[in-house]
Amino acid sequence: MTLKVGVIGTGAIGQEHINRLNNKLAGAQVVAASDIDAAAARAAVAKLAPGAKVHADGRAVIADPNVDAVVVTSWGPTHEEFVLAAIAAGKPVFCEKPLATTADACLKIVNAEIAAGRHLVQVGFMRRYDSGYRALKKAIDDGAIGAPLMVHCAHRNPSVPEAYVSSMAIVDTFIHEIDVLRWLIGDDYASAQVIVPRNTRLTHSKLDDPIIVMLATKGGIRIDGEVFVNCQYGYDIRCQVVGEDGVADLPEPQSVPLRREGRFSTAILQDWKLRFIDSYDVELQDWIDATKLGKVDGPNAWDGYFAAVTADACLEAQRTGAVVPIVTTPRPVFYDKG
Amino acid sequence: MTLKVGVIGTGAIGQEHINRLNNKLAGAQVVAASDIDAAAARAAVAKLAPGAKVHADGRAVIADPNVDAVVVTSWGPTHEEFVLAAIAAGKPVFCEKPLATTADACLKIVNAEIAAGRHLVQVGFMRRYDSGYRALKKAIDDGAIGAPLMVHCAHRNPSVPEAYVSSMAIVDTFIHEIDVLRWLIGDDYASAQVIVPRNTRLTHSKLDDPIIVMLATKGGIRIDGEVFVNCQYGYDIRCQVVGEDGVADLPEPQSVPLRREGRFSTAILQDWKLRFIDSYDVELQDWIDATKLGKVDGPNAWDGYFAAVTADACLEAQRTGAVVPIVTTPRPVFYDKG
Amino acid sequence: MTLKVGVIGTGAIGQEHINRLNNKLAGAQVVAASDIDAAAARAAVAKLAPGAKVHADGRAVIADPNVDAVVVTSWGPTHEEFVLAAIAAGKPVFCEKPLATTADACLKIVNAEIAAGRHLVQVGFMRRYDSGYRALKKAIDDGAIGAPLMVHCAHRNPSVPEAYVSSMAIVDTFIHEIDVLRWLIGDDYASAQVIVPRNTRLTHSKLDDPIIVMLATKGGIRIDGEVFVNCQYGYDIRCQVVGEDGVADLPEPQSVPLRREGRFSTAILQDWKLRFIDSYDVELQDWIDATKLGKVDGPNAWDGYFAAVTADACLEAQRTGAVVPIVTTPRPVFYDKG
Amino acid sequence: MTLKVGVIGTGAIGQEHINRLNNKLAGAQVVAASDIDAAAARAAVAKLAPGAKVHADGRAVIADPNVDAVVVTSWGPTHEEFVLAAIAAGKPVFCEKPLATTADACLKIVNAEIAAGRHLVQVGFMRRYDSGYRALKKAIDDGAIGAPLMVHCAHRNPSVPEAYVSSMAIVDTFIHEIDVLRWLIGDDYASAQVIVPRNTRLTHSKLDDPIIVMLATKGGIRIDGEVFVNCQYGYDIRCQVVGEDGVADLPEPQSVPLRREGRFSTAILQDWKLRFIDSYDVELQDWIDATKLGKVDGPNAWDGYFAAVTADACLEAQRTGAVVPIVTTPRPVFYDKG
Ligand SMILES: [Mg+2]
Ligand SMILES: [Mg+2]
Ligand SMILES: [Mg+2]
Ligand SMILES: [Mg+2]
Repeated sequence: MTLKVGVIGTGAIGQEHINRLNNKLAGAQVVAASDIDAAAARAAVAKLAPGAKVHADGRAVIADPNVDAVVVTSWGPTHEEFVLAAIAAGKPVFCEKPLATTADACLKIVNAEIAAGRHLVQVGFMRRYDSGYRALKKAIDDGAIGAPLMVHCAHRNPSVPEAYVSSMAIVDTFIHEIDVLRWLIGDDYASAQVIVPRNTRLTHSKLDDPIIVMLATKGGIRIDGEVFVNCQYGYDIRCQVVGEDGVADLPEPQSVPLRREGRFSTAILQDWKLRFIDSYDVELQDWIDATKLGKVDGPNAWDGYFAAVTADACLEAQRTGAVVPIVTTPRPVFYDKG
Repeated sequence: MTLKVGVIGTGAIGQEHINRLNNKLAGAQVVAASDIDAAAARAAVAKLAPGAKVHADGRAVIADPNVDAVVVTSWGPTHEEFVLAAIAAGKPVFCEKPLATTADACLKIVNAEIAAGRHLVQVGFMRRYDSGYRALKKAIDDGAIGAPLMVHCAHRNPSVPEAYVSSMAIVDTFIHEIDVLRWLIGDDYASAQVIVPRNTRLTHSKLDDPIIVMLATKGGIRIDGEVFVNCQYGYDIRCQVVGEDGVADLPEPQSVPLRREGRFSTAILQDWKLRFIDSYDVELQDWIDATKLGKVDGPNAWDGYFAAVTADACLEAQRTGAVVPIVTTPRPVFYDKG
Repeated sequence: MTLKVGVIGTGAIGQEHINRLNNKLAGAQVVAASDIDAAAARAAVAKLAPGAKVHADGRAVIADPNVDAVVVTSWGPTHEEFVLAAIAAGKPVFCEKPLATTADACLKIVNAEIAAGRHLVQVGFMRRYDSGYRALKKAIDDGAIGAPLMVHCAHRNPSVPEAYVSSMAIVDTFIHEIDVLRWLIGDDYASAQVIVPRNTRLTHSKLDDPIIVMLATKGGIRIDGEVFVNCQYGYDIRCQVVGEDGVADLPEPQSVPLRREGRFSTAILQDWKLRFIDSYDVELQDWIDATKLGKVDGPNAWDGYFAAVTADACLEAQRTGAVVPIVTTPRPVFYDKG
Repeated sequence: MTLKVGVIGTGAIGQEHINRLNNKLAGAQVVAASDIDAAAARAAVAKLAPGAKVHADGRAVIADPNVDAVVVTSWGPTHEEFVLAAIAAGKPVFCEKPLATTADACLKIVNAEIAAGRHLVQVGFMRRYDSGYRALKKAIDDGAIGAPLMVHCAHRNPSVPEAYVSSMAIVDTFIHEIDVLRWLIGDDYASAQVIVPRNTRLTHSKLDDPIIVMLATKGGIRIDGEVFVNCQYGYDIRCQVVGEDGVADLPEPQSVPLRREGRFSTAILQDWKLRFIDSYDVELQDWIDATKLGKVDGPNAWDGYFAAVTADACLEAQRTGAVVPIVTTPRPVFYDKG
């Protein structure tokens, strides 16, 4: 059985996902697509999924009876509408992050999914599919380091454009840590604090860079997360988990060790896409396979909501310097595992 | 367009390839299969490629008009027959190593392919598709270390069964280095010598273990290749290329760095399949894609022949202790790149 | 010229320093010693510095006209008295940490030294003499990573005895980071905060373990320092400095890389003495050489005072959870470099 | 008790040893010196050992009744004479490598020492005192890798001057491996073979570079030793010992790990002196201490003779391409350990 997919939004990530689903992964076919720029949608489809139908808008994609499942890769502010529409249509939906632009909107989606009585929504937090994070989680779950007590991590980009301002360090950058660390250590967040070192000379007036985000979990685990988006030297994602019996690190990406010109060295990636490109493949293949079984295995609507609430707390902490509690509605039984 | 594949031989590797081609990779479908044990073929097909036709023998698979291309995963001694038949039928054929059990038989295949006037044959040397070897080759080709002068490598297995005897260190184990190093450094072999250290206490009377295979290339590059198949500690493939301007190493497989119980450590794989499992996927996806374009991008019949001649020289060197020349027929223009 | 040294306090560290000065390093001779336990002093001298005179008390050691310089390795509460007496006698004095047990007492020493008009006092912060920290400082000072913005560090011990309580995490353990990081980054501290994760199950009721000490410098550098003294796996001192242009790490102690039993590993030290044993030699040799030149090159009385004030702030931060300012008297011109 | 040392030869290494013995290490004093250039000797002594007497020649140094022990750092061809004279005078002698310029001369020294009935001679193979080799030897001796079967090693220099010709790859460069590996694995050599890869473009007509020296031990251990003295990238000494149960590597020199400009790197030393500078200190301190006890703990005259015989065999193997046996006189009981 082939999963027939409709893709809403054919920008860069949309085109990549169309190509993945249609030409690279197994078990799916892109049968429909739309974009706010209809010509762009037609061009993308012509190139990557020649047989697919181009619809006037995302709602038409969802309504297409030939579409089994929906991928939302449109502009963030439209996510809420399309995800709710997919739930209303009873169709599984993979939505790129963010699930919605506000925590309230995420909660609305959570409630809609619960009302629908079926698990339909997955959010595009691809790091959970990275082989490194998976191996790290396995080590922790296998008890290699005992119960986690602290996480030291860093998210570094070589540089960011002028349009990148302080809040984006949370909602575009650290948001990945917010989701993946919660999954990694299996604990929910209780509070956030943001510490602001002296700015690097290489930032601009609208961006405090670097910052350190401190999270406490309900179970008392402490996370310190450096976000440094003008670090110059490369795209570097670091994560060290300190447990009661040992310490585990996120593996480094593979690189050829070179001895030349007086240095022993490995290359550091310069582009985040190269770092997580494989994760996208695993993520969507997993989504195809789970969807066919009527399941959601990946980050779900509740995870999307939790990330949104956490990001809001981090933003407030960033503005105020205070320790800000992270408070969600009680976790619905619907999202219990097993 | 989907490539319709017939698989000859449904043993362990055959089943894995059927599953890859049919359920995991993009652009292929297994439409026919056979095995000397017809019931085994039926069971494999029922489980992994339900729609495929089970034929009485490999020749019938090749003859099936619905079959576009053939995968040979039967017992080694049958490879020659099936590859020649596929060539005769004008059908692309992917043959697991060895291409044939003798250098003469490989040469017969080479000549048959040349006579057919089309590139049809690929040999299953999967290491060329390993991400580590590819990165290493790219570094060399990019000039990172200058012209190669020496290669130091090792092929270590934790242990081998009693049935594994001295010759298998060449034909089953070092054969992978024979192919991949020639590709890596872009040079043909000129001679072989085998040096036999004291045996490990953990070998048996029919197996000299470890050995060191010394190869010289036509361009004067020297390779020392340790083969140690009872090394106890793990499956470890090492390769260091020393160039005029620097040195490059094969990257280590990814592993979680752990600090516990007084050691800082990473895991070493215990099973060769885990080491190269991803390479099989890349290899067959590449084969599917190239085959659709009417090309052979991977190790070809000439490479299979060259590996066979080299292995024969290594075996003689192992028996005699002498430096044994590696002599092939002149390379046919047919196999020129470009 | 041989520097004739008197040693006050012949406990474990006292005996080690006597042996170093007298038998291992160049240019010094231990000519006098004392201990509260006179028999112990006699035994130490008999074994390690046979010709030295045993005095009734530390003041007599200082007063001995044959003594050029004094080493204070007695019980902490006595340091103030002996250092002040040495200053009064105009004799150079090397005092093991702490310089004195209160910041006020340290300040009294500072003022006495200024009044004496000569640099006489060095404090035993040996980490500044560790080859790893020195190499790290050189990299920073050479501009390899640009201006420092953040320091991530950890001080881990395998375990501590029952008598070790929460305050000792600051005054016995993190005190080393307090001194060495200030020297490393060349900036003074402005405030401290202590964050307390969930305790490890392996601590006891009087000890919060681990903790994270957050320091801010006057220049805006932020330091997060994990102190985890029941980490089980080893004695591990980690330090990463993040600068505007790059990141530098404290080198690992040398260890033989081993491949065995399925792991690639290096040993982690289990005893802090092994980690810094070489530093003691360098430290005291440097002190001998500088003392002969009438200089103090190492951590001085002002550094001892600054460490004491910082430790007090960390202790208050540990008790209160608040961000505590670190306030010293203005730095006297007497302690300007150059 | 201070060991009063006379130094013969005050060139570069002679001056360094005078400074070590007199100003850096404990328990020795340089009381006499000589050089073929008497002015040079006077200048060296004035600067580094002001009280020492300058003699007309090395024999006078040895004869000086104030001299307890002799260090020979003169030109290689004079070593034999001075070592024999020291033995005749019954004085301990530390001789920089080579012990003598021919194996026969070394054997004459061996016989003279046996005739003297006392262990008096140590040869300056400083690698045995390197902390890395010592740690590696300890790992092997502790059984961490089981019985050694193979050693893979490399000796790389960034470049050599024009005066460096092929034979020097053995007698000046690989000679260090010859001694240290024999000590490391506790086995004597039985034969040598030299393999010559294509020359690097960066060598000249009198120097084959790189080469691979293959040694077999009496116990069947096989060593492959790359010597590459124009490797460009740095001074790099590598050694991997493969045992029946595991593999151990020589540790890398300490270096600050840096992340900058797209690379994660450590520095590679450019000068061999930096690599082994600490070993010289350990070596001479050990010699002082052992000499005071009337012992020779380091490489002795027999080791010097064995190295000379091995080097001769390697030179012949280099000239002829053949496998050359390494044959010494039987090991005298005098040199038995314990
Ligand atoms: Mg995503
Ligand atoms: Mg294969
Ligand atoms: Mg100290
Ligand atoms: Mg030497």
